[in-house]
Amino acid sequence: MKAFITGGAGFVGSHMAARLAREGHTVTAYDNLSLGRREFLDGLIAAGACTFIEADLLDRDAVARAMAGHDLVIHLAANSDIFEGLKDTELDLRQGTLATFNVLEAMRVHQIKQLVFSSSSVVYGEADVIPTPEDYGPLLPISFYGASKLACEGLITAYGHNFGIQSWIYRFGNIVGPNATHGVILDFIHKLQADPARLEVLGDGRQAKPYLHVTDCVAGMLYGFARATDSVNVFNLAVEDVIDVATIARIVLEAMGLPDAEIAYTGGARGWPGDVPRVGLSPARLASLGWRASMTSRQAVERAVAEIVAQETGR
Amino acid sequence: MKAFITGGAGFVGSHMAARLAREGHTVTAYDNLSLGRREFLDGLIAAGACTFIEADLLDRDAVARAMAGHDLVIHLAANSDIFEGLKDTELDLRQGTLATFNVLEAMRVHQIKQLVFSSSSVVYGEADVIPTPEDYGPLLPISFYGASKLACEGLITAYGHNFGIQSWIYRFGNIVGPNATHGVILDFIHKLQADPARLEVLGDGRQAKPYLHVTDCVAGMLYGFARATDSVNVFNLAVEDVIDVATIARIVLEAMGLPDAEIAYTGGARGWPGDVPRVGLSPARLASLGWRASMTSRQAVERAVAEIVAQETGR
Repeated sequence: MKAFITGGAGFVGSHMAARLAREGHTVTAYDNLSLGRREFLDGLIAAGACTFIEADLLDRDAVARAMAGHDLVIHLAANSDIFEGLKDTELDLRQGTLATFNVLEAMRVHQIKQLVFSSSSVVYGEADVIPTPEDYGPLLPISFYGASKLACEGLITAYGHNFGIQSWIYRFGNIVGPNATHGVILDFIHKLQADPARLEVLGDGRQAKPYLHVTDCVAGMLYGFARATDSVNVFNLAVEDVIDVATIARIVLEAMGLPDAEIAYTGGARGWPGDVPRVGLSPARLASLGWRASMTSRQAVERAVAEIVAQETGR
Repeated sequence: MKAFITGGAGFVGSHMAARLAREGHTVTAYDNLSLGRREFLDGLIAAGACTFIEADLLDRDAVARAMAGHDLVIHLAANSDIFEGLKDTELDLRQGTLATFNVLEAMRVHQIKQLVFSSSSVVYGEADVIPTPEDYGPLLPISFYGASKLACEGLITAYGHNFGIQSWIYRFGNIVGPNATHGVILDFIHKLQADPARLEVLGDGRQAKPYLHVTDCVAGMLYGFARATDSVNVFNLAVEDVIDVATIARIVLEAMGLPDAEIAYTGGARGWPGDVPRVGLSPARLASLGWRASMTSRQAVERAVAEIVAQETGR
């Protein structure tokens, strides 16, 4: 298999690249390094197991040139920082919707017929059915990131229908693990590095969501890809249980060796205006194919905190 | 009320402008005349009942300037010709998604808090529940027009949540009536004007969909706007019954005085690759507020055919 990974130097992308290379596939990682980091791929590149292309998906000619000769696209590139998208309303339109359009155009031109895509549970908005199944509607996202993921899903199904591109669309919950480029764990560690005595937590700490370890995320995506045979395959990719932000804060404090630091909540149910405070995703559809995550939300967070603390502090 | 109508010189837009002007509201019609026609507004403009601005929604500064001072936006502009969007994959991205982004940005800048939007039943794709309710999912559109409408819905709910814009999203079935700029009735009339002996019909003639007369469409939109009070209000706007293409062809032949013309079907279940051959929309949600269309699909088509034949042939 010749896999073209967008966002290949990013969080999920670097793990995907490593796993596919380990399995003997040809891997090209395409990344503009806006969030990703070349060092996440250094080992693979040195071993000749991955070709890295530093370029932007908004450069339509560049992505089309780079994609030639591949037979699978794994499209992971996005502005994955939802909060940033609220400050600049055009960010997700460009990095999400327009970038995805360019990916699909390149696939059309080169007749590449398989696409794995990282969508998000934020397409559901504030669902009134929890855990939310894939056939929930109407889809009323409350963030620009969510709006963009919904737009991408529609573009993928329209291209798929008209140009014979089979797709596997995964609606992620929170993903955690090494190489994270943003997210609650990294935020807490950075805040504690700046002030070890006090950790500010956005919201009331009761926001509760499912957390999946990035190794499980990559495994789940490839599991569904290998087995689901519809022209469009939409899956939640998550564990059913959740963990709240206050618990994550305490896990980080312990791992940083700062059990007595003060936790200061900013208050309110939401961390920020586009935050969905309670998320629960039904993993039943992917489970019906035989897959389940190897870790609960708590296990995933505990492992990721240990890994990220080691990565960030050099311990 | 000071209403700003995008696509105001178009099919639905010109009827909306006329009705709002008749009710005494201040009306601005904004249109690039790509599909719309200034003559649809000539009467209103001459009577001083409507301000017409010829400009493009892709000109972000122009739309922002023009929108200042209004308190309601009725966003109807789009490439409403689904078939055209299949030939040029970027058409709906630009005329739908990017244009809608510019509309929402202008609303944000000018703090305009109410938006009525024409979405489409094509966001459902090929639904396996018919009549399809508004909470159907997952939404897997098969045309670029459908992908764009889905993208617009997401942008609207994200802007709505973050900037306090209340929205009324109407998922249209087929709309028919005078001032139509495309669609099956107009196609049939133009074909018969070119060759009165033979009418080519795309597909097998059995594609069956609900048809709403444009006067009912405008009435339904304003009815829901006046009564639905959620921050996001999503409604199918359609009648429950359907009419098939073969029946429409026969109605057009009769109205044209060509009952003996040959009807030649191109065959196949779909009219074209992005066509959804069987559509049925549940009107129950808007009906629960007390609204129902004044005409069945057949009555709407019969009236529209008579009106369009008169308009096109000057009879």
